[in-house]
Amino acid sequence: MGVSFLEIPLVERFLTLTEESLKKFIDSQVRAIVEVGNYIVEGGGKRLRPLLLLLIAKGGGLENKHLEERGVPLAVGIEYIHTASLLHDDVVDNSQRRRGRPSAHTLFGNAVSVLTGDYMYATALYLYSIYGTPKMIEVVSNAVRLMAEGQVLELKKVGELIDEKTYFEIIDGKTAVLFGASAAVGALASPNLRGSYKDFWNFGLYLGRAFQLIDDALDYEGSETQLGKPVGQDLMEGKTTYPLLVILQKIGDIQEVKRILLNGSPEELKNLVNLVRELGGVEKTKERARRELSRAKEILNRSKLQGEVREILNQMVDFIAERTY
Amino acid sequence: MGVSFLEIPLVERFLTLTEESLKKFIDSQVRAIVEVGNYIVEGGGKRLRPLLLLLIAKGGGLENKHLEERGVPLAVGIEYIHTASLLHDDVVDNSQRRRGRPSAHTLFGNAVSVLTGDYMYATALYLYSIYGTPKMIEVVSNAVRLMAEGQVLELKKVGELIDEKTYFEIIDGKTAVLFGASAAVGALASPNLRGSYKDFWNFGLYLGRAFQLIDDALDYEGSETQLGKPVGQDLMEGKTTYPLLVILQKIGDIQEVKRILLNGSPEELKNLVNLVRELGGVEKTKERARRELSRAKEILNRSKLQGEVREILNQMVDFIAERTY
Repeated sequence: MGVSFLEIPLVERFLTLTEESLKKFIDSQVRAIVEVGNYIVEGGGKRLRPLLLLLIAKGGGLENKHLEERGVPLAVGIEYIHTASLLHDDVVDNSQRRRGRPSAHTLFGNAVSVLTGDYMYATALYLYSIYGTPKMIEVVSNAVRLMAEGQVLELKKVGELIDEKTYFEIIDGKTAVLFGASAAVGALASPNLRGSYKDFWNFGLYLGRAFQLIDDALDYEGSETQLGKPVGQDLMEGKTTYPLLVILQKIGDIQEVKRILLNGSPEELKNLVNLVRELGGVEKTKERARRELSRAKEILNRSKLQGEVREILNQMVDFIAERTY
Repeated sequence: MGVSFLEIPLVERFLTLTEESLKKFIDSQVRAIVEVGNYIVEGGGKRLRPLLLLLIAKGGGLENKHLEERGVPLAVGIEYIHTASLLHDDVVDNSQRRRGRPSAHTLFGNAVSVLTGDYMYATALYLYSIYGTPKMIEVVSNAVRLMAEGQVLELKKVGELIDEKTYFEIIDGKTAVLFGASAAVGALASPNLRGSYKDFWNFGLYLGRAFQLIDDALDYEGSETQLGKPVGQDLMEGKTTYPLLVILQKIGDIQEVKRILLNGSPEELKNLVNLVRELGGVEKTKERARRELSRAKEILNRSKLQGEVREILNQMVDFIAERTY
C-alpha cells in the first residue's frame, strides 16, 4: 500500500488546514462558550467528515484558492455540527467519558454543554450562510433533523430488542447522514460534481454506515484502552446493535435475550457479550460493513472525480474498513 | 383606541395562518419528537415574533400569495427557534413550570427535550433554506448564536450583582435578538424594505428589549395566577434584573444586597422584593421600556412601510407597552 492513508501529503495538508481553523470561529465574548467549545473540539477524533468534504471538493475541480477560502469554513462547519451533537449526546446519555477524557458535561455542567452545543450548531449554519449556498444549507439542516430523530429513536428503543430495519434507521441518523452531508457539500462546492451531489450523499451514507457498523463491532471485541470506554457498553446500556442482531437466530431463547437486555445482571450481560463473539457476531458485522464500503466504492469509481483524488478516497474507504479504534 | 390590537382583522388573519402551519412542519416519523414538539408549540404564547415578521413583510409590499407561500413558513421557522430555545432553557434552568403547565422536560425527560429542541432548530433552518435567502439565514443563525451566548452569560452571573451593561447583553441575547431577526426577515422578504433590513433589525431589538424589561417588571409586581410562576422568581433564582438595578443606589448597603442575592433566606428575598417595589423599581423599569418603545416607533415612522400596516405596528408597540401578563 505504500504510505498510510493519514500520511498522504494532500490528506495531511487538509487535516492541517482543518485543525488551524477549528478554533477560529468559536470567537464568543462569553468565556464559558470558548472554554467548552475548545474542550470538545480538542477532544480530537479523526476529522474524517471535514476531510471527506475537502477531498471531494478538490476532486471535483475546486481550485486551491477557493478550497482554502470557502471549502475550509464549510468543512469546519460540518465538524462543529459533529461536536455539537457529541455535546448534546453526552448530556442525553449521561456519559461520563468521551475519547478517554471526562465528558464535557461532567466538567462544565449540563446547562453550559447544552447551550454551547446550540452555539456550535448555529455557528455552523452561520458559516454556511456566508460560504455556502441554499442547497448546501438544505442538505446540512436536513442532516441535523435526521440526526436528532436517530438519537431519539435510539433512546426510545433502549432495553428493547430491535429489528434490522430499526437498527439502520438509528445508525443512519446518528452517524451516516452527516457523512452523507459532508460528501454532498463537497460535491456541491465543486464545479464538476455539483450535478451529482446526490450520488455523493449516498457515497457518504454508505461510508458512515460502515463506520458505525465497525464501531459497533469494536464495542464487542476491543479492549477498554483502545476504545476509551468499557467493552460491551452498548449492551450494558440496553442497546441492540448489529453484532447481536445478526447472530440472534442462532440463539435458541430470544425471550431470554430480551430479558437480559432489559435488566440482566452484569454477569449475564458479560456472558451475552461472549456468546455474541463466539457465534461470529463481530465478524459478520465487519462483513456487512465491507458490503456497505463496496457500494461506496462503486459510486466513487463511476463518478467524475479527478483520478488522484479518487485513488485517495478509495484508500479512505480501506482505512475505514481496517480501523481498530 | 377602537378595537384591541389582537382583534384587528389583518392581525387575526396572520395569527390564524401561523397557528394553522405551526404543527405542519413537525412531521417526524419519530413519535416522541412529534409529541414533545406539539406540546411545546401548543403551550401558546402570543406569537408576536411571527406576527412581526408577517406584518413587516406585508407593509413592505409582499403580495398575499407570497405571504402565504413563503412568509408563513419563515414566520413558523422563527417560532420554532423560539420554542426550541424554551425547551433547552427549561432543561438548563430546571424549571418545573412554563406558562402555567408542567414544563416539557418534567413530562418527557431531559434527553428528549434537548433532542426535540435540536430537531426544531434544524427544521427552522431547513425552512429558511427552502423559503428564505442566504442573507436571512445569516441573520437568523447569528441570532441563535447570540441567544445561546445570552443564556450562558445569564447562567454564569447567577448569584452576582450585575451592572446595566451586562443586564442588556443578557436580555438582548435571550430575547431581543430574535425579535430583531423576525423584523429583519420580514423586511428582507419584502420588495420595498429589503434595503433597510438593518433598521428593522433595530426596530425589533428595541421592541424585544421593552418586552423583556416589562417581563422583568411583572416578575416583581404580578400575581402568581397571571404569571403562571411565583412572584419574585428572578431574585429567588439569584438573577439581577432591571427593577433591582435601577433602584440600587437608593439602597444604602449594597454588600447586603449581594449577600441576599447569593444566599438570602426566603424571608430576606421577599423583603428585598418589597423594597424594590417601594423604591419604585417596577415603575422605573416600565419607564425604561417605554423609552425603548419610543425609539422603536421613531424607526417605524421614518420607514417606507405602507400606511395601514405602519399604524398596526404602532398599535403593536402600544400593546407591548401595556401588557400585564
